[in-house]
Amino acid sequence: MVQGRGKFITVEGIEGAGKSSNLDFMQQLLEAQGISVVRTREPGGTALGEEIRKLLLGHRHTGMSRDTELLLMFGARAEHIARVIEPGLASGAWVLCDRFTDASYAYQGGGRGIDRERIRVLETWVQGSLRPDITLLLDLPVADGLMRAGKRSEPDRFEREKESFFNRVRNCYLEIARASPERVHVIDATPRLPDVQVHIEQLLREFIQVSTRA
Amino acid sequence: MVQGRGKFITVEGIEGAGKSSNLDFMQQLLEAQGISVVRTREPGGTALGEEIRKLLLGHRHTGMSRDTELLLMFGARAEHIARVIEPGLASGAWVLCDRFTDASYAYQGGGRGIDRERIRVLETWVQGSLRPDITLLLDLPVADGLMRAGKRSEPDRFEREKESFFNRVRNCYLEIARASPERVHVIDATPRLPDVQVHIEQLLREFIQVSTRA
Repeated sequence: MVQGRGKFITVEGIEGAGKSSNLDFMQQLLEAQGISVVRTREPGGTALGEEIRKLLLGHRHTGMSRDTELLLMFGARAEHIARVIEPGLASGAWVLCDRFTDASYAYQGGGRGIDRERIRVLETWVQGSLRPDITLLLDLPVADGLMRAGKRSEPDRFEREKESFFNRVRNCYLEIARASPERVHVIDATPRLPDVQVHIEQLLREFIQVSTRA
Repeated sequence: MVQGRGKFITVEGIEGAGKSSNLDFMQQLLEAQGISVVRTREPGGTALGEEIRKLLLGHRHTGMSRDTELLLMFGARAEHIARVIEPGLASGAWVLCDRFTDASYAYQGGGRGIDRERIRVLETWVQGSLRPDITLLLDLPVADGLMRAGKRSEPDRFEREKESFFNRVRNCYLEIARASPERVHVIDATPRLPDVQVHIEQLLREFIQVSTRA
């Protein structure tokens, strides 16, 4: 049914925004339309990327410089693009990715304070012209997200950051959405999951319609 | 005796060029002059960097994309600069480093074919204005180097490359030396070690004299 190159969909948001549950929902919705889906995540998405993810999220390297952190993120991303994302899109599949470069702007830019122009240099270096076709930003107040995330598991190196860090991350995400309203759609993630999914379903159905008509 | 900021000395060369033995010799020579030395290596030089080194040199990720490889090299380098090289130089020590960014040009540029202008973007991104004060390039024919290296241990992911790869690496090193004759000194590494060291000692004594006079 879907011809040619697939679409690249990313989901962003702070800890506890409900990315995983909503990605499951999105995958089912796309597959029900006969679209083949490659579901993946960052950092990670490849064997090497998952090892880099361990270095990034583990606690052995808490003093890691912020430049190192960003270079490792983009190193894992380069591998992810070459091995998973580009081959997936080229095969006609839709790639559904849990976090992508917006997260680098939000966490390493907003959170850690790396200048966004420096991030843009690496974005261009690694991605060339590759950008997501559509991004869903699951937004909710930081305190709510941390409360939800805190109920799940041991916090990783990022989850141990202070609330002020996540407020900077959230604000940066919202700035990106304001700057790229065509691509980035803000979803209010505070209501109950079924209510959030009504919103997601509507957005996704419109996107499918526009994409498959073209 | 030596005041102010230390000097940054790098040693480059293909496998089997004798870098380790000659770095030992150089360290002794500097310390005998009352200069405190920080001896280090790339990729690696920090706890995190050594873990990245394992990813880079190990065999589990033989299919790694060349962009990923270069980003991981520079990721380890960013950490190395922040934790070891800059603090060392600032303390007045001389930093003696087994390989640095010339190796990225030689291996990822010459060897793997990444455009040198793309490497330059990352060099500037990571290092700002930091460059070695002097570089010794231990040069010898690839077949001789591989024969020497082959006697030592199990080959790593780079050492398993073909001779043509190392010829491109060597040629790129020699191009760098021609382009930066003030900084890069080519040492013929084919003679017996004591003869090579006569040459290194002369160079290093001149460099110490000029550096401590200034």
